[in-house]
Amino acid sequence: MRTGRLEALSDGVLAIIITIMVLELKIPEGHSFADLAHSTGVGLLTYLLSFVYVSIYWNNHHHMFHLVKEVTGGILWANLGLLFALSLLPFTTAWVDESRFARTPVFVYGLNLLAAAVAYFVLQSTAIRLQGPDSPLRRAVGSDLKGKVSTAVLIVGLAAALSPVPVWIALICFAGVAVLWIVPDRRIARAVVVGSDALPAKGEV
Amino acid sequence: MRTGRLEALSDGVLAIIITIMVLELKIPEGHSFADLAHSTGVGLLTYLLSFVYVSIYWNNHHHMFHLVKEVTGGILWANLGLLFALSLLPFTTAWVDESRFARTPVFVYGLNLLAAAVAYFVLQSTAIRLQGPDSPLRRAVGSDLKGKVSTAVLIVGLAAALSPVPVWIALICFAGVAVLWIVPDRRIARAVVVGSDALPAKGEV
Amino acid sequence: MRTGRLEALSDGVLAIIITIMVLELKIPEGHSFADLAHSTGVGLLTYLLSFVYVSIYWNNHHHMFHLVKEVTGGILWANLGLLFALSLLPFTTAWVDESRFARTPVFVYGLNLLAAAVAYFVLQSTAIRLQGPDSPLRRAVGSDLKGKVSTAVLIVGLAAALSPVPVWIALICFAGVAVLWIVPDRRIARAVVVGSDALPAKGEV
Amino acid sequence: MRTGRLEALSDGVLAIIITIMVLELKIPEGHSFADLAHSTGVGLLTYLLSFVYVSIYWNNHHHMFHLVKEVTGGILWANLGLLFALSLLPFTTAWVDESRFARTPVFVYGLNLLAAAVAYFVLQSTAIRLQGPDSPLRRAVGSDLKGKVSTAVLIVGLAAALSPVPVWIALICFAGVAVLWIVPDRRIARAVVVGSDALPAKGEV
Repeated sequence: MRTGRLEALSDGVLAIIITIMVLELKIPEGHSFADLAHSTGVGLLTYLLSFVYVSIYWNNHHHMFHLVKEVTGGILWANLGLLFALSLLPFTTAWVDESRFARTPVFVYGLNLLAAAVAYFVLQSTAIRLQGPDSPLRRAVGSDLKGKVSTAVLIVGLAAALSPVPVWIALICFAGVAVLWIVPDRRIARAVVVGSDALPAKGEV
Repeated sequence: MRTGRLEALSDGVLAIIITIMVLELKIPEGHSFADLAHSTGVGLLTYLLSFVYVSIYWNNHHHMFHLVKEVTGGILWANLGLLFALSLLPFTTAWVDESRFARTPVFVYGLNLLAAAVAYFVLQSTAIRLQGPDSPLRRAVGSDLKGKVSTAVLIVGLAAALSPVPVWIALICFAGVAVLWIVPDRRIARAVVVGSDALPAKGEV
Repeated sequence: MRTGRLEALSDGVLAIIITIMVLELKIPEGHSFADLAHSTGVGLLTYLLSFVYVSIYWNNHHHMFHLVKEVTGGILWANLGLLFALSLLPFTTAWVDESRFARTPVFVYGLNLLAAAVAYFVLQSTAIRLQGPDSPLRRAVGSDLKGKVSTAVLIVGLAAALSPVPVWIALICFAGVAVLWIVPDRRIARAVVVGSDALPAKGEV
Repeated sequence: MRTGRLEALSDGVLAIIITIMVLELKIPEGHSFADLAHSTGVGLLTYLLSFVYVSIYWNNHHHMFHLVKEVTGGILWANLGLLFALSLLPFTTAWVDESRFARTPVFVYGLNLLAAAVAYFVLQSTAIRLQGPDSPLRRAVGSDLKGKVSTAVLIVGLAAALSPVPVWIALICFAGVAVLWIVPDRRIARAVVVGSDALPAKGEV
C-alpha cells in the first residue's frame, strides 16, 4: 500500500506517453495505400519502437516494485526522474519521424533512451541501497549483465549516429536493445540470468 | 493483486484512447446547425463507433481478468499487443473521418479492428494455455462462437471495402459486430451461449 | 472490488476530459494582459464551467458507487453512456469558446449538458432497479427533486438559447445548475433534501 | 478506502498534466543541434520547471493524504480547486515558452504557481479543521514555515516580473521555491522542520 500511489502515478504517466505518441501520426493527405505508406510509414515504425520501449520500462518497473515495499523521498524523486526521461520520448520520436531518420534527431532519440536507462539504474540503485546487500532485489539484480550490455549497445548506437556509417546501424542498435528485453529466452533465464539479470526475464515472471 | 497493475495500465490506456478521439472532432467553421452537421457529422458517427469498440474491449478485458489470477511474461506482452492495436484506432478513425468514408481508409480501419480481434484472441489463448483445459476461463470461452462469427463478419467487411459494392456495406459489417457484442440477448445467453461464448454476454455479468 | 475497474475507467476518463480541455485554450498572440484577456477570456470562463460540471459528475458518481456493490451489463453500458456524453464536452466547450457565445453553439453545449444529465439518470435508475425499492440508494435518491429542478433549468436554458432573449440568460441557466450542485446548503440538506435529493449534498458526505 | 477515488482522480489529473506539457514542445524545423537548441531550448527549461512543480505537488499531496482518512464535501472541492489551478500550468507554461520569457507571461506563470500554493493551503486547512487541533496532520504542519517562505518568495518573484529589474530574477525566485521543496536537507528536517514544516521533507518520508 505504501507504494500504491507511486505505482498509480507511474502507470498513469506511462499509459499517457504510450497513447499520445499516436497523436503524432500524420493523417495521410490522400486516400490510397501509397499515401498511407508515404506519410505514415516512418511514423508507424518509430511509434512501434517507442511503444515497445515504454512497455519494457513498464514491465521492468512492475517487476522491480514487487520487491520494493517502502517508498522514501529518494525513490520518489528517482522515479520522477525516470518518468521525466520517458515523457520526452513522444517529442524525440516525433522529431526522428519528421526528419525521416536524419542523423541528429536519431542521435537525440538515442540520448533519450540512454537517459531513461540511466534514470532506471539510479532508481534501482536507490532501492537497493535502501534495502541492503542481502535483499531479494539485490540478489535479483545480481551483476546486472543485461543492463550493462544494453547501455553499451545504446552507446555504440549513439556513436554510429554521429559517425559516417549509415544511420540505420544506429537504429539497429536501438531496436536490438528492445529485442534483448522482449525475448524471453527461458534457457538463458534459467541457467545464467537468474543471478545476473537486472530483473527476471519476461518469460519467467 | 498480481493482475492489479496490468489492469491499471490497461484501464489507463483505454481511457485515454476513448477520450483523445474526441480531439479529432473538428470545430465547425460557422456557428449554425448546418455547419455542425457538415463538419462534424461524419466525425461524430465514426467517433461513436470507435468509442463503442473500445468499450466492448474494455468490458471483455474486464470479464476475462476476473478469471485470470496470475500474470506471466506471455500475458504481459499479449496484453500490450492488444493495447497497441487499439491505440491505433484514433489514427485510423481520423483518416476514415477526414476521407468521408473513402474505400482505402475504411479498409484500413477494418484491418485495425481485425488486428485488435486477433490480439484479443492471442491474449485469451495465452491465458487459457496457462490455466489448462479444465479452467473456468476455458469453459467460459467454450467454442468461442461469437468470436468466430465476429472475425468472419469483419473479413466480409474488409472484402466489401475493396470490392465494387457500396462502401457502406463494409461499415454495416463493422457496426454489426459492435451491435453483436452490445446486445445482451438474455435468451440466447441462457440457452446457448453459456457454453459457446468467448465471454459472458453483457447482460449476464 | 467488483466495481473497482468500472470506477478506475471512469476516474481515468473524467481526469482526461478535465485536463484536455485546457489544450483548447489558445496561447495569446501578443505578450500583454490585453492579449491574454482578448484571446483567453472567453476560453477561461467556458473551461471553468465545464471543469465544474465534470467535477460535479465525478462527485456524484463517487457518491452513487458507495451504494452500488455489484456491476451488471446494464450498469456497465449505462456508465459508458454517461462517459460518452461527458467526453463530448471538450468539443462543445471549444465551439462555444471559438464562437464567443453564438446562439447555436451555446444551444449545443446545453444539449450536451442535458444528454449527460439524462445519461446519469439512466445509470441511477438502472442501479436502483437492480437493488430493489428498499435499497439505500433508492432511499438516498428519494423524489430526486434536485435532479428534476436541474433538468428543468437546463431545458429553460436551451429554450432561451434559441429564442430572441439575450444569450447570456441561457448561460446563467447552465451556470445556475452548477452552483445548485456545488453549494453545500447544510440547512436545506438536513431539513428537506435528505429524503428528496438525488445524492447527499456536497457538504454532507 | 474512503480517500481512494479522490487520490485516483488526483493521480490521473496530475499524470496527464505532467505528460501533455510535452505536447507543447515544438518539433525543430531543421535537423541540427542548433535547430534543436533554437526551437526547444526555452521550452525544455520551462517544461522541466513545470514538471518539477507538479511533481512536488504530487509528493506533498501523497504525504498529506497519509494523514487524511475521511473525505468531506469541503475536501473534495478544495482538492478540485487545486487540480484546477494545476491544470492551467500547461497553458501558462506554453505562453512563457512561446514569448521567450516576456514579462507578462512570466508574471502570469508566477500567478498560476501562487494560485496553486493558495489552493494547496486551503486544502490543507480544510483537512486540519476537520481533524481538530490535536490531529497528526496539525502537528506535522506546525507553523508551516516552509509554506510561508515559499509564498513570500513567489510574491517577490511576481513583483520582480512587473518591475524594471531583469526578468530572470523572477524566474530564479520561481525555481528557488522548487529547489526548496526538492532538497531533502536531513539536518534541518531533524532539528527544526519536524515541528514547522508543512509536510515531511522529501528525504524523510
